Amino acid sequence: MPHDNQQILINSLPSGKLSADNYRPTSAPIPVIGDGEILVKTTAFLLSAGSRAGLQGSASYAGAPSAGRVMNSSGVGEVISSQCRDVPVGRYVQVPTGWQQFSAHSGYDATVIPADHNPIDYLGPLGINGLTAYFGLLDVAQIQAGENVMVSAAAGSVGHLVGQIATLKGAHVVGICGSNAKAERLVSELGFRTAVNYKSGHYRDQLKTATPNGVDIYFDNTGGMILGSALFRMNLRGRIACCGVVSQYDTDRPEPAPKGIPGLLVNKRLTMRGFLVYDYAQRFNEARNELQGWLARNELISLTDEVYGLDSAPEAFVDLLGGGNIGTRIVRLDQAT
Amino acid sequence: MPHDNQQILINSLPSGKLSADNYRPTSAPIPVIGDGEILVKTTAFLLSAGSRAGLQGSASYAGAPSAGRVMNSSGVGEVISSQCRDVPVGRYVQVPTGWQQFSAHSGYDATVIPADHNPIDYLGPLGINGLTAYFGLLDVAQIQAGENVMVSAAAGSVGHLVGQIATLKGAHVVGICGSNAKAERLVSELGFRTAVNYKSGHYRDQLKTATPNGVDIYFDNTGGMILGSALFRMNLRGRIACCGVVSQYDTDRPEPAPKGIPGLLVNKRLTMRGFLVYDYAQRFNEARNELQGWLARNELISLTDEVYGLDSAPEAFVDLLGGGNIGTRIVRLDQAT
Repeated sequence: MPHDNQQILINSLPSGKLSADNYRPTSAPIPVIGDGEILVKTTAFLLSAGSRAGLQGSASYAGAPSAGRVMNSSGVGEVISSQCRDVPVGRYVQVPTGWQQFSAHSGYDATVIPADHNPIDYLGPLGINGLTAYFGLLDVAQIQAGENVMVSAAAGSVGHLVGQIATLKGAHVVGICGSNAKAERLVSELGFRTAVNYKSGHYRDQLKTATPNGVDIYFDNTGGMILGSALFRMNLRGRIACCGVVSQYDTDRPEPAPKGIPGLLVNKRLTMRGFLVYDYAQRFNEARNELQGWLARNELISLTDEVYGLDSAPEAFVDLLGGGNIGTRIVRLDQAT
Repeated sequence: MPHDNQQILINSLPSGKLSADNYRPTSAPIPVIGDGEILVKTTAFLLSAGSRAGLQGSASYAGAPSAGRVMNSSGVGEVISSQCRDVPVGRYVQVPTGWQQFSAHSGYDATVIPADHNPIDYLGPLGINGLTAYFGLLDVAQIQAGENVMVSAAAGSVGHLVGQIATLKGAHVVGICGSNAKAERLVSELGFRTAVNYKSGHYRDQLKTATPNGVDIYFDNTGGMILGSALFRMNLRGRIACCGVVSQYDTDRPEPAPKGIPGLLVNKRLTMRGFLVYDYAQRFNEARNELQGWLARNELISLTDEVYGLDSAPEAFVDLLGGGNIGTRIVRLDQAT
């Protein structure tokens, strides 16, 4: 067993856009575990736009991201030492590994991955991203077959699953994304009915053309201008599932919400509902059963965009925030050279 | 029977703030009714901030307010001629009288007022205002005893009823209004637990003090800055009933929605839901039964602010939009000199 734990620390909280300089590599001793704990060797961890929000310095809970701490992230890994009877050595678990090789956790807080599941899927369709898409559509938005669904950040880690799950539930899906290349893949590989690049000219006209029957459900991963465009396409009694605000994460100057709130909510009797997937923790296994069935039958495709090695994480995260990836971006440590 | 029907016409649609010059008096022949119709002599009509929205020239339905038309409003009056078997002469009805002495309507579209109800209450607690307050709290916001309710435009035609109904349902109510005099009356006459004048200095601090346990339900009649202040006081899983946008009616430059949408909706798992009371038409009688019970027992007080005579309507409406009234402002024609 190695004696060194390679880590990436937060060097400073960003005051404007995040850059790779906000991070620095270091090493530390491998943690010693106590009663009930497990030691996890990281297989891979997730880069998620949502974790940019925690870097704004406003979080005040214990362990909130701050300079000098290991950068936080969800990850999966192998249990290499255990003092928790229920989580033996050799099992794979999903835990908040952070950007490091080794981490200690309470065994009772770990999600133990069944032997017939792919651990990497716990950073995607069977992890927080997939569960967010699932409960946002089924519970928050109450999706029905035949409805018209719009999703923003549609090529992102949550969005690409939202579009596919909505399609599996019989809805007609338009995805909003930031490049023509992404739009093409959403349609050709993932079965979206159509996709619109919001950075092309005439975005609003294109959206109108792409939603001839309006929008019954808008799954909002962005807020901002795209939320504004959705309000104008919503049908009477439409539902907006508010999942994230990616347009606002990488800035210290949040823009105001779009016009039309609350005016259009009243005129169209719209419902906007914010949610966090952790509120559905009691139902994660029920959701994973359905999601794993789709995966096993190749009805649900997990697009992953893998980078290799701890040192590649800062640049890959900055690039993610700039819209550079498609699907779920993960950093693999198991195949690092 | 007189041969003249005194009316107030829309002279021009306002391009900025509404003024009395946007109206002009005229007279016309009294309408001749056809089969199924009734002729109504106006007793009183309602001045409502909501009808300002229709003057922005964007409505495109048949009969939308436009220059040369009689100004629209809800009213009550006596049936003085009838070709509708179900609505005989002598009954009082609630109909869209507009700003005029006489009007013809389909008898089947009229709300016939029971003989033991006060017709004037059909412009207040038993009319659209009361029903809006009732369904907004009970159905949209799902009010529960012991919850903390905030209502804006709290001294207005809907707001003063919202606060009282919420209190009758066992909630703790803070009203937001635009003067200290209004705030005092809400507490002393109507039983609000507390009220805050948003025009006083330190509004946000005062709101914080007035909501020591946060806000579970915000009944939004205003949008804008007060909606923004509510977002910061909302408790987890709070509900916002979006009823109106009075802050935006008397302007041609709607302000953007406040910061915090959708970010705070996500973090606090809030629901914002817009509604129109007409969606509840099937349940109006059920609601009126409960409302009339409260009125009969003096548990619900209808504050009305009456002006007299058709010619007083334009100035009274402009003053209403400037926040000059308390309760429901109506124009009475039956006592005009």
